[in-house]
Amino acid sequence: MARAEVTPARRADARQNIEKILGAAVACLGRKPDASVNEIAQAAGVGRMTLYGHFATREALVEAALRRVLEDGDAVLEDLDLDGDPPAALRALIESSWLLIAQASAVLEAAQATLPPERIRELHAKPELRVHDLIRRGQAEGAFRDDLPVEWLAGVLFHLMKGAAADVVRNRLDPADAPRYLAETVLAAYAGPRAGV
Amino acid sequence: MARAEVTPARRADARQNIEKILGAAVACLGRKPDASVNEIAQAAGVGRMTLYGHFATREALVEAALRRVLEDGDAVLEDLDLDGDPPAALRALIESSWLLIAQASAVLEAAQATLPPERIRELHAKPELRVHDLIRRGQAEGAFRDDLPVEWLAGVLFHLMKGAAADVVRNRLDPADAPRYLAETVLAAYAGPRAGV
Repeated sequence: MARAEVTPARRADARQNIEKILGAAVACLGRKPDASVNEIAQAAGVGRMTLYGHFATREALVEAALRRVLEDGDAVLEDLDLDGDPPAALRALIESSWLLIAQASAVLEAAQATLPPERIRELHAKPELRVHDLIRRGQAEGAFRDDLPVEWLAGVLFHLMKGAAADVVRNRLDPADAPRYLAETVLAAYAGPRAGV
Repeated sequence: MARAEVTPARRADARQNIEKILGAAVACLGRKPDASVNEIAQAAGVGRMTLYGHFATREALVEAALRRVLEDGDAVLEDLDLDGDPPAALRALIESSWLLIAQASAVLEAAQATLPPERIRELHAKPELRVHDLIRRGQAEGAFRDDLPVEWLAGVLFHLMKGAAADVVRNRLDPADAPRYLAETVLAAYAGPRAGV
């Protein structure tokens, strides 16, 4: 058999399959950090061999999925104006991207069992830095408390977004309420103790 | 072979094995919600057959592990005075039992894939109710915000305790700092917006 010619139509097919596989990988790994390559291929509706044609190992697939959610998350953050009033910027960040960030941190968790720690740090340094910078600026301007470290305050944001996403999956939280509940909670937590309390 | 006689020494051995198995199940399921019976037996240092002698199925083992952490958690909550000033009671609750509650919610998550939902609700209704009652009383007395529902505020507490426990495991948080960070964060989140913000 002659080698299949790489026509534009075949390239379009390949790109479509890669999109399907990455979308399924993000969804599967978010729900179940040790999802297998088979489960991901099935969710993507592609054959196992097609998947392996694009991603030679599970590690390569997990890395590509992580890269994808982090790039998507970073693109959303880049479009936001994070340079204004820190509480307003934090609220805009939560309302525009809580679900995407929750998904990214679930995939990040899956990646922690698969990829070397320095690779993970490298991949998510940029979006993490945007959040840290915003918190640091809020502390410097007196809008956010400075009795707790930046890393902890960033963790509070990520833990609550992930928790809210899990509550939505379990039908314990209406997704329409989630952004407001998250923003009201995180803003109060970052503001610090009420005067007189 | 004659049937082994059930002597007091054999009964003590059995009790010891059950303790080892339940301790290992709580630890393993907390780290990895789909931990297998084999992994739990290995972590407990008992044989697979010994484990099956006490817990006939994985489901029975998960239920016993969940019951164990919830009973331990409830015993700690029972010893606390939750009837005083709500913020002080909340701080005491976090400082005395954040790690235990974090562990319980990790096992709870593992159980969600295994046990029927109504069984789970039944098992953790009591400790959950104690937390809900405290929040409700704080709202009624004006100490806690009432612009967010009780279930969400309770979820904030559980998500943050679980997140802090995960941060400790990943060496991102000093366990000695965790109770103070948690209490300061949750108290501010529950107090609500700062006057003038």
